[in-house]
Amino acid sequence: MLDSIFRALADPARRQMVERLTRGAASVSELAAPLSMSLPGVMQHLKVLDDAGLTISEKRGRVRWRRLNADAMATAESWIAERRRLWNTRLDALERHLKADNGD
Amino acid sequence: MLDSIFRALADPARRQMVERLTRGAASVSELAAPLSMSLPGVMQHLKVLDDAGLTISEKRGRVRWRRLNADAMATAESWIAERRRLWNTRLDALERHLKADNGD
Repeated sequence: MLDSIFRALADPARRQMVERLTRGAASVSELAAPLSMSLPGVMQHLKVLDDAGLTISEKRGRVRWRRLNADAMATAESWIAERRRLWNTRLDALERHLKADNGD
Repeated sequence: MLDSIFRALADPARRQMVERLTRGAASVSELAAPLSMSLPGVMQHLKVLDDAGLTISEKRGRVRWRRLNADAMATAESWIAERRRLWNTRLDALERHLKADNGD
């Protein structure tokens, strides 16, 4: 899960698609428009985003739409946030320790 | 920058190293200990973390230490957090719009 989410976010074209999707659901052609890329290239990137669970694909009428899945983004964000929190707690403890050693 | 940070986090062995480093600086052998992996394999993963700026490498005496770079983690965390925020703002606006349509 985290493997595929972080891998999906490691590409600028895929991040640009995520960026576009924060403004609402989009069709493949809307997602492809700002990118200088072949349609198969676009489809491949979308598959990586879908497989990671970052995007949800829905067919309405004859058009397939993608929308963001905030849960997958939250999973990745929480993993990093928790590691940062642990590290900061560790730094704070070190600082207190050094201050105590200096008799502050 | 974001490319290399997210790519570095997309591997379970590298996330395990980050996990270990939240408890404080570690030598290569301390980082290698819990992993069933050859030393060249460990060194390769450490290079990916170093290159992404997630870890900082320092030589003290004859031992090389790695410590976490919280700034790089914050960069990745902020990117995701901001996209989630935009998407949630969008969802809230949609919800208000639907409620208004229903005369709520």
